Amino acid sequence: MEGLDTTQLRTLAAVVGEGSFEGAARVLHVTPSAVSQRIRALEEVVGQVLVRRSRPCQATDAGQPLLRLAVQLTLLEREAVAEARGVVDGAAGPTRVPVVVNADSLATWFVPALARVPADLAVCFDVRQDDQDHTAELLRDGAVLAAVTAQREPVQGCRVRPLGAMRYRALAAPALVARWFPDGLAVEALARAPVLVFDRKDRVQHRFLRAVTGRELDPPVHHVPSVPAFSEAIRCGLAWGLVPERLAEPDLADGSCLDLDPGRHVDVPLYWQHWRLESRLLDALTDAVRAEAAVALR
Amino acid sequence: MEGLDTTQLRTLAAVVGEGSFEGAARVLHVTPSAVSQRIRALEEVVGQVLVRRSRPCQATDAGQPLLRLAVQLTLLEREAVAEARGVVDGAAGPTRVPVVVNADSLATWFVPALARVPADLAVCFDVRQDDQDHTAELLRDGAVLAAVTAQREPVQGCRVRPLGAMRYRALAAPALVARWFPDGLAVEALARAPVLVFDRKDRVQHRFLRAVTGRELDPPVHHVPSVPAFSEAIRCGLAWGLVPERLAEPDLADGSCLDLDPGRHVDVPLYWQHWRLESRLLDALTDAVRAEAAVALR
Repeated sequence: MEGLDTTQLRTLAAVVGEGSFEGAARVLHVTPSAVSQRIRALEEVVGQVLVRRSRPCQATDAGQPLLRLAVQLTLLEREAVAEARGVVDGAAGPTRVPVVVNADSLATWFVPALARVPADLAVCFDVRQDDQDHTAELLRDGAVLAAVTAQREPVQGCRVRPLGAMRYRALAAPALVARWFPDGLAVEALARAPVLVFDRKDRVQHRFLRAVTGRELDPPVHHVPSVPAFSEAIRCGLAWGLVPERLAEPDLADGSCLDLDPGRHVDVPLYWQHWRLESRLLDALTDAVRAEAAVALR
Repeated sequence: MEGLDTTQLRTLAAVVGEGSFEGAARVLHVTPSAVSQRIRALEEVVGQVLVRRSRPCQATDAGQPLLRLAVQLTLLEREAVAEARGVVDGAAGPTRVPVVVNADSLATWFVPALARVPADLAVCFDVRQDDQDHTAELLRDGAVLAAVTAQREPVQGCRVRPLGAMRYRALAAPALVARWFPDGLAVEALARAPVLVFDRKDRVQHRFLRAVTGRELDPPVHHVPSVPAFSEAIRCGLAWGLVPERLAEPDLADGSCLDLDPGRHVDVPLYWQHWRLESRLLDALTDAVRAEAAVALR
């Protein structure tokens, strides 16, 4: 078999990265029909359908190893060119670095970590957000280079480093406590009081309920998939919910929320998983993430 | 044709609402195979595939009208039962109300609107987040009852009410201004300075660039899909970006950010679109949303 065409591989990465043939055409400065032709040509060489033409476009099972190869090539190529030219990396234009992070990390410590990456590396961060129990899937798909994840076992081809735990406390507005929990966390009350859940993937509240009651309860649930809206909904008394301790502190301090069970917390251990690559940029990002996590997590 | 089975319709709504057959089985307290049987039975009656078995499961084109019917039936049925029993609505268990909201509204004024809905209506809010230019799609699909959207033309079967405009200002950290814009917003600098974009659907920054320069520029982009992380990335000097004025105020007041172009802003008019239904609950939610928007938007 001949070697693969790097332009076609880069086009594959752009289609999946942007989610559509039109988006890929825009970032590559070519026509959508040129994008189609390149993908079809690559699919003919490999003899497999590589892109699922859905909205957004996704790599098929056959497309995933090629997508990983494409993202890796782009990164390594840029660094090699920059080194050959004897200039800082940015001279070749910024490098896109796709990563996925859980919502609470992104809302608290992750951006300061990005800010620690030296500016001369000329990176464009392409951050995605997903539940920590699901971020490893995007790593497996080849869609991202690195992930903040709750998964401890390395994804194939990846390296794992522990970051520490994010600690959650159960918060509720004083009025909600007075209405539902005047006598503390009775099982009966926990089974009926409304609880706030981030989205359909979020299991943290149910983990807390299991820890407190030893049972699987099924209380009424509000879904509010936004970190600031989640805290606001608790302050408004809509429901109780688990909040990272760093975000809980001001609401506890000014009395707008109470700690439902002051002795108890839920710790979610987080890991940094990234592809095994000899890349100055990935090394710098890993150093930055570990340094910031060491300050922000337990 | 016989009438449709309401249990099967409710099962369809649960599969699409939860995104999977397993999730639907959990909320309906039946086995996944019972869920499969009901969906297959409904598909046989209608003679069409109604659910795309993807992750998450979605309604097919044929499934969309049935999904809308199912969600409407659930809502109307609960209200009729409550009225017949002469009790407040909550006695029949809380009613799930699926809505979709743009990220900046959700992070600022939307939760206080939800808190205005009378508690005796016993609602469980199922909030989704999407770009204001795309929220109307979920309304069209039948996945939500109501949406905060930038789309002014009514979706079929929906009613539209203007909410006012969300005003954005262009913010940057003082260090970023000093590096890229020492002489103001030159086209050359705007073409090269890094810009922050929420996600692939967000066009607000590019609208600002077009308004300032009259041209389509293509500067380096960081994607950061989280409202608090977006503001933090601007404060850290990673890039400039557009921020809702209400979130911009504290950063401008304490000097952590500067207004890139103090005379200029981007206004995004928002609308509340909801299905045409005789529902006390939907009326109460609409009143609450309009009242809060009147205070929070322009």
